[in-house]
Amino acid sequence: MILTSKNNPLIKETAALKEKKARKEYGMFLVEGRKMARECLNSGFEIDRVFVTENYTGEIPFAEEVLVRVSEDVLCYLSDEKTPQGILCRVKIPVNQLRAPKGKCLLLDGVADPGNVGTIIRTANAAGYNEIYLTETCADPYSPKSVRASMSGIFFTQLYRATRTEILSVLGDTPIIAADMDGENVFSFVPPQRFALVIGNEANGISEETFRAATHTVKIPMQATQESLNAAISAGIIMYVLNKDEF
Amino acid sequence: MILTSKNNPLIKETAALKEKKARKEYGMFLVEGRKMARECLNSGFEIDRVFVTENYTGEIPFAEEVLVRVSEDVLCYLSDEKTPQGILCRVKIPVNQLRAPKGKCLLLDGVADPGNVGTIIRTANAAGYNEIYLTETCADPYSPKSVRASMSGIFFTQLYRATRTEILSVLGDTPIIAADMDGENVFSFVPPQRFALVIGNEANGISEETFRAATHTVKIPMQATQESLNAAISAGIIMYVLNKDEF
Repeated sequence: MILTSKNNPLIKETAALKEKKARKEYGMFLVEGRKMARECLNSGFEIDRVFVTENYTGEIPFAEEVLVRVSEDVLCYLSDEKTPQGILCRVKIPVNQLRAPKGKCLLLDGVADPGNVGTIIRTANAAGYNEIYLTETCADPYSPKSVRASMSGIFFTQLYRATRTEILSVLGDTPIIAADMDGENVFSFVPPQRFALVIGNEANGISEETFRAATHTVKIPMQATQESLNAAISAGIIMYVLNKDEF
Repeated sequence: MILTSKNNPLIKETAALKEKKARKEYGMFLVEGRKMARECLNSGFEIDRVFVTENYTGEIPFAEEVLVRVSEDVLCYLSDEKTPQGILCRVKIPVNQLRAPKGKCLLLDGVADPGNVGTIIRTANAAGYNEIYLTETCADPYSPKSVRASMSGIFFTQLYRATRTEILSVLGDTPIIAADMDGENVFSFVPPQRFALVIGNEANGISEETFRAATHTVKIPMQATQESLNAAISAGIIMYVLNKDEF
């Protein structure tokens, strides 16, 4: 059977997952495209449904009971992409109990742009930061835009979402490194064995509460004609420089 | 006098500069917002006209003969921003004669996304790469989106636009460093005194022609679950790591 109606309850409920409210209510999010669908499967994330168009030609390595055949029209309706690839998964958002980090970790303190959140998750996954704490003021990492920008990073990092106070509490005596214009040159800074690196809001930087908790500050030096870098760029540079000895 | 008509020839001609064709024809581009307008003035770029709304409250440090008062409506029409700031400059595109680099430089080899081009220019300006060569296959650095992402970097770097062959020819015996998955770990790589760092296309990487001309290859090491980074992120990391001793 091929679902062709946008009014089908399953389709309506799934399309709603493009919005944060429904993701929170149902505890699920959307994963699009053949590469992301395959990575999702490999990651062990719990896949609730896989929507595939009748003309989809890629491999479909999913159990028959989760497969839902849909018309092109319906898939476009579910999709957040300009050119949908004919496959879209509905996936359970993992529930990670807030706990102290095991290794070097990230604290996203109010990163507001979903593209930045996703790009930072992608870079963190590459650079060896597998635990990421996000304050409630961050953009939702499970939005279609963030998931796409994460390039599967969302599947291979542990995300912890909580209030700033809860996060700082669980970090306990973990050294906290904050980027700051008056900090030490990150290229000569010698980081502690384990730490939490803070990335602040795009416009307002790191919150006062987190800044007070910081035990170290670092800066990326710059030529005088430029006073700041894009948040995801500076996050990428600092993450890699502080973890370069692991590679 | 306040211009209130979108049909005014000056307004029509200026609005057209949002498109590449008109920028090429008139040799001018648009700079928006109070901060960018001020930086543009400081940079010494030749400002042809400054459009300001009747209600604009910021300082207007421009000569009376370039000022054009316009209605809110007309400024919105000229603007590429969601929330225009009431000031927009029409600026001459500098004509930089193609020549060999004086210091460490960048070669953008088909970077196609205007946001990436702008962000890379911003980061290059911060990281001390003041000469940037762009192949004809790159997105136009003078598009509104690229100018905005450059955060004034466009005013403080020398941009050279030419064919790939012309650029490689003018680089002469300058060592060329290309990012490549099989390259040397960029964190242990010792760069030559002067070099051109190549950034390739987002989807297809560096062109064959440029890759053949490369004298060194470097890679950013990654955890196995991630196979690449966003182009602007990897450009930022490599630029800084190769120039860190200058700071």
